Amino acid sequence: MKNLAGKSPREIRELIRTNQFNGPTAGVARGYAQANLAVLKKEDAFSFLLFCQRNQKPCPLLDVTEPGSPIPSLVAPEGDIRTDIGSYRIYRNGELSEEVQDITPFWEDDMVGFLIGCSFTFEHALINNGIPIRHIDLGCNVPMYKSNIACTRAGKFDGNMVVSMKPVKEKDVVRAVQVTSRFPAVHGGPVHIGSPETIGIQDLAAPDFGDAVSVDAGEVPVFWACGVTPQAVAMHAKPELMITHSPGHMFVTDVSDEQYGVL
Amino acid sequence: MKNLAGKSPREIRELIRTNQFNGPTAGVARGYAQANLAVLKKEDAFSFLLFCQRNQKPCPLLDVTEPGSPIPSLVAPEGDIRTDIGSYRIYRNGELSEEVQDITPFWEDDMVGFLIGCSFTFEHALINNGIPIRHIDLGCNVPMYKSNIACTRAGKFDGNMVVSMKPVKEKDVVRAVQVTSRFPAVHGGPVHIGSPETIGIQDLAAPDFGDAVSVDAGEVPVFWACGVTPQAVAMHAKPELMITHSPGHMFVTDVSDEQYGVL
Repeated sequence: MKNLAGKSPREIRELIRTNQFNGPTAGVARGYAQANLAVLKKEDAFSFLLFCQRNQKPCPLLDVTEPGSPIPSLVAPEGDIRTDIGSYRIYRNGELSEEVQDITPFWEDDMVGFLIGCSFTFEHALINNGIPIRHIDLGCNVPMYKSNIACTRAGKFDGNMVVSMKPVKEKDVVRAVQVTSRFPAVHGGPVHIGSPETIGIQDLAAPDFGDAVSVDAGEVPVFWACGVTPQAVAMHAKPELMITHSPGHMFVTDVSDEQYGVL
Repeated sequence: MKNLAGKSPREIRELIRTNQFNGPTAGVARGYAQANLAVLKKEDAFSFLLFCQRNQKPCPLLDVTEPGSPIPSLVAPEGDIRTDIGSYRIYRNGELSEEVQDITPFWEDDMVGFLIGCSFTFEHALINNGIPIRHIDLGCNVPMYKSNIACTRAGKFDGNMVVSMKPVKEKDVVRAVQVTSRFPAVHGGPVHIGSPETIGIQDLAAPDFGDAVSVDAGEVPVFWACGVTPQAVAMHAKPELMITHSPGHMFVTDVSDEQYGVL
């Protein structure tokens, strides 16, 4: 499957929907925002929406579907969250029960889909500003850690923030803050710069999710709120049923990255 | 009642709660963000929360209380939305039924309070940047208009955006966009610059809410999304019971204006 970077979001979703592509979406439809997915039944949706509203850095909502509707009308009015992601995970009472390529058979008429901003958008902005991203250069996943930064509880949803880490050259740290702060809809500026211990991370070489990358001499570890937080929090709350995208298999929206820049 | 500008938010709320002050709050506790209030029963709260999430420019949420709790834990953990506003309006089925100074007798254990950002914050930012605000200089209310800009529907909540207008000198228009864009949590950048007709406003001299102000030679009318929108939309949806602040009588939060700046 070549040239996925140059295809439109609609073309990518069509390829996924017709099972012609179901791989990781990093780098496809370049320039368009991608989103994390969480689907919950209506009984849990209000508290989860409240949780996202109270914790916007880790849980920046790009769209929330009308109960029962699989159409993300703000970010992809012709999309369908049941079929347009390459791989989904079904969790029952907080436990992974199966991984599927189409959730139409699982869809119920009181379900609500949450599309949550993804760091791909601000990673592009960093690269465009000449700030390299180590995990992209290495072709691996970003390292993610459970921090001791508490989220604000909403109903049954509670827990600490998961953060991603990127090593940034000392000379680039200020610019990295400026560039990512332009995008509050996709996690915004960093939550912490420097000592991992301060935010409860004992060993950078042992991430809780993703792959370890080196922090070299003259570099500073910079931490951003991570979109894995809402999934981790939701799973901890053990809702009867929850559906998410599989890691790396994001929903591709029609909204360009730049449209999320506030200035 | 003197020196209200220099008092802390907690002192102001205490004065209001003990009926020592119940006037308009413009200019009190200077430097701290104030908020619009809307209270709905839980049955309407999910759709209204969704409406705010989908229409963040007119409905920027600063806090949403846990169902049944009157405590805005994010913005004023020692505050109480039932008593800390000087004047409230009770709407039944979309009609104003009474105006009261304490809503404790009306509070029900499934109610949810929405605190929505207010333009006072970015008005201060404009003034600090040397851009005068005519309605403040005149000591009147800002002119507000029903525009033809459609909001995105959520459940029963639907309608057009209400916008406020400030005349800005041509030389200051770019700076006004920059300054207010820093504050997405309080309406952010303008929604329109220039011709009122383009957004469905026929006569600037006849605002739908507030007071008319002149637009002089060399000035451009600049329009921002207005916090009256969610109230107008909610009243149009005719919920059985809805409680709001009375115009100008805002909730004073513990959060400084500057804390809402994203950069």
